[in-house]
Amino acid sequence: MFDPEDHSHRRFNPLNGQWVLVSPHRSKRPWLGQQESAEEAPRLAHDASCYLCAGNRRVTGEVNPDYRGPFVFDNDFAALQPDVPAEAAGAAVDELFQRMPARGQSRVICFSEDHSLSLPELSPAGVEAVVDTWCAQSAELGQRWPWVQVFENKGAAMGCSNPHPHGQLWASDFLPRIAATEDGTQRAYFNTHGEPMLLAVARREAELAERVVVANDDWLAVVPYWAEWPFETLVLPRFAVQRLPELTPAQRASLAALVQALTVRYDNLFQCSFPYSMGWHGAPFTDEAGSHWQLHAHFYPPLLRSATVRKFMVGYEMLAESQRDLTPEQAAARLRDLPAVHYRRA
Amino acid sequence: MFDPEDHSHRRFNPLNGQWVLVSPHRSKRPWLGQQESAEEAPRLAHDASCYLCAGNRRVTGEVNPDYRGPFVFDNDFAALQPDVPAEAAGAAVDELFQRMPARGQSRVICFSEDHSLSLPELSPAGVEAVVDTWCAQSAELGQRWPWVQVFENKGAAMGCSNPHPHGQLWASDFLPRIAATEDGTQRAYFNTHGEPMLLAVARREAELAERVVVANDDWLAVVPYWAEWPFETLVLPRFAVQRLPELTPAQRASLAALVQALTVRYDNLFQCSFPYSMGWHGAPFTDEAGSHWQLHAHFYPPLLRSATVRKFMVGYEMLAESQRDLTPEQAAARLRDLPAVHYRRA
Ligand SMILES: O=P(O)(O)O[C@H]1O[C@H](CO)[C@@H](O)[C@H](O)[C@H]1O
Ligand SMILES: O=P(O)(O)O[C@H]1O[C@H](CO)[C@@H](O)[C@H](O)[C@H]1O
Repeated sequence: MFDPEDHSHRRFNPLNGQWVLVSPHRSKRPWLGQQESAEEAPRLAHDASCYLCAGNRRVTGEVNPDYRGPFVFDNDFAALQPDVPAEAAGAAVDELFQRMPARGQSRVICFSEDHSLSLPELSPAGVEAVVDTWCAQSAELGQRWPWVQVFENKGAAMGCSNPHPHGQLWASDFLPRIAATEDGTQRAYFNTHGEPMLLAVARREAELAERVVVANDDWLAVVPYWAEWPFETLVLPRFAVQRLPELTPAQRASLAALVQALTVRYDNLFQCSFPYSMGWHGAPFTDEAGSHWQLHAHFYPPLLRSATVRKFMVGYEMLAESQRDLTPEQAAARLRDLPAVHYRRA
Repeated sequence: MFDPEDHSHRRFNPLNGQWVLVSPHRSKRPWLGQQESAEEAPRLAHDASCYLCAGNRRVTGEVNPDYRGPFVFDNDFAALQPDVPAEAAGAAVDELFQRMPARGQSRVICFSEDHSLSLPELSPAGVEAVVDTWCAQSAELGQRWPWVQVFENKGAAMGCSNPHPHGQLWASDFLPRIAATEDGTQRAYFNTHGEPMLLAVARREAELAERVVVANDDWLAVVPYWAEWPFETLVLPRFAVQRLPELTPAQRASLAALVQALTVRYDNLFQCSFPYSMGWHGAPFTDEAGSHWQLHAHFYPPLLRSATVRKFMVGYEMLAESQRDLTPEQAAARLRDLPAVHYRRA
């Protein structure tokens, strides 16, 4: 008899249209490869050598204000800039070598003045201020750009170059590839079913419960059926909503609570400051209707076995198909069963 | 005036149908993030503690033969296994939660008995023996499975758990997602142009020369126009061929020479044993005709600035679009201008 807890199988991700290979027995494999250095969160509330701390000098020479709460500034090394000139008129298009100018804006969001507190350890009001900033910045940049990518790289293992808790905003005059894919899959589902795909997913996941990590009346965090990363989660609203700025004050507060509940469990899993990349996807700002869209966040954490052993998405994953070593149901159960109180406060 | 050496732009990858963001000015950004430990190749020709060395015991208790040259064995922790049972007859299909059993075989290829010699440092005959093994294994596994993924994860930064030079084979009863995508894009191009896309790319790249790293009469290695990783390369035959086993002895020899010339430059770039994941894509073995396919290899190396500073494909890349910090032409020029002799032999 086929048993998904034991036998290799593939699962389909209807949001990106891709299959994922699940090999549950692989987690028995010994690991002799690279170890990460355990991510210990910094303990100083203010670090004189940190270019993101209040009152300190950045690489450009600019001095940060003596801020409290979230602080937003233009990225000193922006990948996207507003003033890229157009291609010369009549520039030839080559089918094999196609390009287009890319314009946009990049900003940094320091979550608070406290160098030592990441989302799971901020005060509830501190997390609410971060959620409000995500919403306000999206609204502002969304007036000018069709896509505003809100994201956070947390931890050195995720390419974060400064431990001061912060996120980023990269806005662009184009729909990035993943946005375009999600636009297409959600549109097709909506056209067939008359309901946003991820609203149906949230309802089904709440009923099934086996992949739910944390939930409240407005929000769910699940390890999606098609998760690629070992402890990947998807944050879903339980009501129809297309973009961050459309959230009501109450929905922002319940979102802050959900994000904190989720990230506390992440930190508790391996008793470390749990690294991840996370970010928000919502309807493009140029799409008046956009009713096929449902706002959601993805959390992609790299760790697999411990604070120092990560999952490598390499060889087979880069060349053939993403592959995971435990089932999403196993991952969800492990996260769900963890204490709700942060291990450093317990 | 728009200048692709200076202004952010997007480039289109016709093989996977995706756009890539190129931000040439970003490489000026200072790096304070994670440093890899410099990959020093092991110096022992035989390591008593290595479970891949000749005559040593593996985790399963099995003892390796006293092999010389390539040695192939079944992966002791195979992600893909042949004997997965079918779903129960009449099992319900759920549009939002789809799955299928996945069957296949996984093997390991030790490149030679010498623990200290990776592809750039093996003898030319040693590299030819590896190419022959890739071809013979593909032929054998291709009799049973539609897709045979030949790949190598080199270096701890690429999740390689044992420094003994080795590659892998994962064969499957399905076309993995990337294989399916490349099948579709190549078919569409062939139907329109009557020529395999990558044969046209090889001809154009040879003419343009600016992205060629190394070449011989049969083969080219280029940093593709749409490269995602900083020093990514694409190995292309200059003649029509669909699968590894179809290569003639002369074409295998010239391929071995090309692979060695490329990997020597990789090692010379930062004077280290250069990590990468690489692998082969060819027509599925079930596709009788497959004339839209052109055999090719991808090399995906993670390093960006030095032996210890890699490119992180995180936040924006995972949530929006791959982004690179130098142009493919700059990367190709740097690799091309390196000495042809390995730095440890010079
Ligand atoms: O098979 P290995 O070498 O044990 O494992 C390595 O390669 C696999 C295939 O690319 C990956 O799934 C693993 O994450 C990686 O650590
Ligand atoms: O912008 P940062 O934090 O300097 O850089 C980090 O995030 C970027 C956006 O995800 C990535 O392109 C970089 O590779 C990563 O190191």
